[in-house]
Amino acid sequence: MYRLGGSHVLPVSGVDNPELLAAAADLPLPSRHVPRGGEAWLGRRELRPAGTEVRIGPATIGDGSVAVIAGPCAVETPEQMLATAAVVAEHGAVALRGGVFKPRTSPHSFQGLGFTGLELLVEARKRTGLPFVTEVVDPEHVKRLAEVVDGFQIGARNMQNFALLSAVGQSGLPVVLKRGFGCTVEETLAAGEYLLLEGNDQVVLCERGIRTFEPSARFTLDLTAVALWKQRTHLPVIVDPSHSGGRPELVEPLSLAAVAAGADALLIDVHVQPEQALCDGNQAIRPARFAGLMTRLAATAAGLGRTLQRY
Amino acid sequence: MYRLGGSHVLPVSGVDNPELLAAAADLPLPSRHVPRGGEAWLGRRELRPAGTEVRIGPATIGDGSVAVIAGPCAVETPEQMLATAAVVAEHGAVALRGGVFKPRTSPHSFQGLGFTGLELLVEARKRTGLPFVTEVVDPEHVKRLAEVVDGFQIGARNMQNFALLSAVGQSGLPVVLKRGFGCTVEETLAAGEYLLLEGNDQVVLCERGIRTFEPSARFTLDLTAVALWKQRTHLPVIVDPSHSGGRPELVEPLSLAAVAAGADALLIDVHVQPEQALCDGNQAIRPARFAGLMTRLAATAAGLGRTLQRY
Amino acid sequence: MYRLGGSHVLPVSGVDNPELLAAAADLPLPSRHVPRGGEAWLGRRELRPAGTEVRIGPATIGDGSVAVIAGPCAVETPEQMLATAAVVAEHGAVALRGGVFKPRTSPHSFQGLGFTGLELLVEARKRTGLPFVTEVVDPEHVKRLAEVVDGFQIGARNMQNFALLSAVGQSGLPVVLKRGFGCTVEETLAAGEYLLLEGNDQVVLCERGIRTFEPSARFTLDLTAVALWKQRTHLPVIVDPSHSGGRPELVEPLSLAAVAAGADALLIDVHVQPEQALCDGNQAIRPARFAGLMTRLAATAAGLGRTLQRY
Amino acid sequence: MYRLGGSHVLPVSGVDNPELLAAAADLPLPSRHVPRGGEAWLGRRELRPAGTEVRIGPATIGDGSVAVIAGPCAVETPEQMLATAAVVAEHGAVALRGGVFKPRTSPHSFQGLGFTGLELLVEARKRTGLPFVTEVVDPEHVKRLAEVVDGFQIGARNMQNFALLSAVGQSGLPVVLKRGFGCTVEETLAAGEYLLLEGNDQVVLCERGIRTFEPSARFTLDLTAVALWKQRTHLPVIVDPSHSGGRPELVEPLSLAAVAAGADALLIDVHVQPEQALCDGNQAIRPARFAGLMTRLAATAAGLGRTLQRY
Repeated sequence: MYRLGGSHVLPVSGVDNPELLAAAADLPLPSRHVPRGGEAWLGRRELRPAGTEVRIGPATIGDGSVAVIAGPCAVETPEQMLATAAVVAEHGAVALRGGVFKPRTSPHSFQGLGFTGLELLVEARKRTGLPFVTEVVDPEHVKRLAEVVDGFQIGARNMQNFALLSAVGQSGLPVVLKRGFGCTVEETLAAGEYLLLEGNDQVVLCERGIRTFEPSARFTLDLTAVALWKQRTHLPVIVDPSHSGGRPELVEPLSLAAVAAGADALLIDVHVQPEQALCDGNQAIRPARFAGLMTRLAATAAGLGRTLQRY
Repeated sequence: MYRLGGSHVLPVSGVDNPELLAAAADLPLPSRHVPRGGEAWLGRRELRPAGTEVRIGPATIGDGSVAVIAGPCAVETPEQMLATAAVVAEHGAVALRGGVFKPRTSPHSFQGLGFTGLELLVEARKRTGLPFVTEVVDPEHVKRLAEVVDGFQIGARNMQNFALLSAVGQSGLPVVLKRGFGCTVEETLAAGEYLLLEGNDQVVLCERGIRTFEPSARFTLDLTAVALWKQRTHLPVIVDPSHSGGRPELVEPLSLAAVAAGADALLIDVHVQPEQALCDGNQAIRPARFAGLMTRLAATAAGLGRTLQRY
Repeated sequence: MYRLGGSHVLPVSGVDNPELLAAAADLPLPSRHVPRGGEAWLGRRELRPAGTEVRIGPATIGDGSVAVIAGPCAVETPEQMLATAAVVAEHGAVALRGGVFKPRTSPHSFQGLGFTGLELLVEARKRTGLPFVTEVVDPEHVKRLAEVVDGFQIGARNMQNFALLSAVGQSGLPVVLKRGFGCTVEETLAAGEYLLLEGNDQVVLCERGIRTFEPSARFTLDLTAVALWKQRTHLPVIVDPSHSGGRPELVEPLSLAAVAAGADALLIDVHVQPEQALCDGNQAIRPARFAGLMTRLAATAAGLGRTLQRY
Repeated sequence: MYRLGGSHVLPVSGVDNPELLAAAADLPLPSRHVPRGGEAWLGRRELRPAGTEVRIGPATIGDGSVAVIAGPCAVETPEQMLATAAVVAEHGAVALRGGVFKPRTSPHSFQGLGFTGLELLVEARKRTGLPFVTEVVDPEHVKRLAEVVDGFQIGARNMQNFALLSAVGQSGLPVVLKRGFGCTVEETLAAGEYLLLEGNDQVVLCERGIRTFEPSARFTLDLTAVALWKQRTHLPVIVDPSHSGGRPELVEPLSLAAVAAGADALLIDVHVQPEQALCDGNQAIRPARFAGLMTRLAATAAGLGRTLQRY
């Protein structure tokens, strides 16, 4: 694996996206102290001006269209998972989301169903035809999960868990990399480098809100970050309005704004019975609201000269 | 003037928007300690579910359309002011902006042309037919300015300068009230109350970015605030992407996102020669970029089912 | 009055601290764009390596000792003001504090007794022999207040109210300038320049907590700012642990820490009956706790090689 | 291992600090949703009003005295490590610090010497008699490291890496748990619960600065957090003024302030040649400054009625 401080030669064995590395080889090497405003190196925009397309099963993110990944925050029961999957598929989501390993602030909170829950995601995929992504929290889980999942999600609390980044990068599977809520635009690009250095360019950066003094919403969605990433990196960008706002009534305005700022995709919490959710239920939207959101998204995308992908 | 702690009777003498106060009179009185999440009282949405329309000269903000106020950050020279005004008028702005009193962090910086600069704004209005708004920083200036200006702007640093708020409220003229960069969504609503209590409902709340740990842009634009204000208050909302991002290349994505989040209007810095600006020139966009922005805005507004006002 | 952009000559008429300006005249002039890390100009440390002593009536701040200014947040009743004054005098405070004009977030909150309350401060001074400082919020009040008060306080919300800064600077009276809760270390130095430029060097910078994502306390006390100011400016520094922490049990540890970080003085909210306070009562400490604090402060100051001033 | 959602019975097998769990068993069980302001459960103060003493080799943290752990940020060369260790031992540090696995924002930065560097720490311990702590970044490293180290450090970026917390908790070794720079006071307590639930009560919470808008220092040291932790948990508290301030001249004032706020210990970066450091060298202090700091700390501790431990 490539590491500065040694021979400084690119490309290196173990890195298997030759196109990207060949382009990088023609550019000046990064210095030991990466200049401020320049944490993207393999990820920087000029290496691939047209942008990188990330393929999650049959879905594509980063081709100029708008894509929606939706599902429950946490996989809880067969009824909840399968009903939610059916609904989001019906209204056009291109992939499912659902957590089975939940990194919770307190060990006294529901931690997810673990590998048991994975079976429900597999069943939902089978019934809807939609691929799914799920969060991974432990490097030791990567290989076992990689046999089943269509893509990984790395959560905000693990954005700088470099052991996890390396393990996921080596899987070669697509990754939704969430920005840490206390991390900068440039640090997120640097975290993406850990994945790219493993030869994995199937990386989607995710803005999901940062910590600020403002208490009215759970986090402050930073759409300036979306605009900056679209200018600085070739990696596509997804926005999570559900965890950011923490309120169902904020999902639609933040989703439309995210797409207008340039986001390639959205990650939406949907739950058929939010009031019974074991995890973050108060931010999930119901099926009817999800249907309305997709209609508004299609019209807004059209106004921007883009198309909403529909499964 | 109305003050809690006395008779608790609404409406009161000196308050001259009887419609608003009559509606308020039918609702429960605010308690001494306004509950969190409830700083809007005269400004709360349920008093005027259809929203308030603010009229700045012939222009209207808050009628469902999208309006653009544009001009230089600071009025500097006749050539700069008149050329910029002509350009923004040509491309559809409905009002001019331009500062003659600049509240600068350091007393060693350019402080604006003062009342002399006002004449240039008057001349620009005469030539273009566009009304103008300008910032007021001293309660003692209010009366003299009120004889000439079409609307006031209260800057972020003065959002909680309550002596200034009262003086401006009493003028009866429309006001663009900028959110303090360290102030919350609810504190901005509370500052608006100072204006409303003077019987002046011609108030536009302005989101212009808040202070966060993120160094990549000058401020972090908080579009969640826009969505929340549209739900909580009947006052229209304007967004300033120029001061927030601090970079010309961020103006377009942030403008489109602001409109998608629900903003009624935008406040845009335009300069015919940004490299010669005496104040914040590095954030102003040039005429050609402004023209492109207006075209993109019109299409995005259409996708949202709205119309871009054009003069 | 001195303004850059004109003749660039120092000193200038109207500035009456010739010592300070003469020292400044020997140093390179500030450029139009003050470099980051350099907002102090007339206030910079090297002009007066020994520091500036500020005299509030018979009390001195900035001579190396530790001084305490104490009293109620707001002046409310004769009993409350006079009893609190007697208590803080008994335990060694060198000056009184008490607000009669309260800049409140909402116009629906108690706004202070105004000039009526001033009489109670005068009476408290007469009985205890302690000078007092009080907050000023309107430039028009400065002259009338200046006839009576021993020193002004400029609140956090008005730190960048430049009209107020100039008016207070011209009074020549000592000023406690509170840092805005969304303002930086350097911006506070720049605000101090507005006072210094009026020829008034009797300025004490006040750290009173900044806005951060941390919800456990009202504000996050920034003692790094205290250390930086002591290195960068000759102006003395005071810390307000009461408004920062917002809880009585935080006053002592934050006070001791402030002095250890280098603060010259403390500003403490004391109330004889906090549960009946009309304003911020839940942060005030009772007399017994104040007495204990003074004892602990004296011992800590001794450990630091300093002395607690006692009236 | 104990997990809520199951039998809800305390104590449970696998948890081997019976004293702590027995005390917990007499208190009401935590509800599924831990109330805000109450993330400490096994760690809450009332379980052990006298506080927990943490033993790192022969050193003790949390017995009321003040202890200093010092050494280089990263282990680099034999000369650097051994010379620095000798110096800090000479001036009274009770334990060494030194990183061999460095979690770096960018994969293009120096990542530490890995297990090779560990040998230098062992040699330094042998020569000075001081125990050492070192950072662990990967759950897979825990067992191998546990055979050699005296204590672990969990870095700010890994505070919510729950797989790592569990693995380290199971080692039974003492842990310095650094607060995430975007994490709250309560979230840090909750992270400590992950360690306590493994039956490991040898946990020291570390304040090392949080992310705020203030750019003058690397982070904003939050000493309010120290005061709150001392009131809410029985775990001892350490402060890292070196990483927080990011400047040598801030180490002393922040160290003294931390102790005055109630910290039990300090974690100080010392380097014999900071200008040659491969990692964060610009924040390390030189030996002479360290010696002066220890002298000042001893006097300040005495003023607080405490004693500086000296090896």
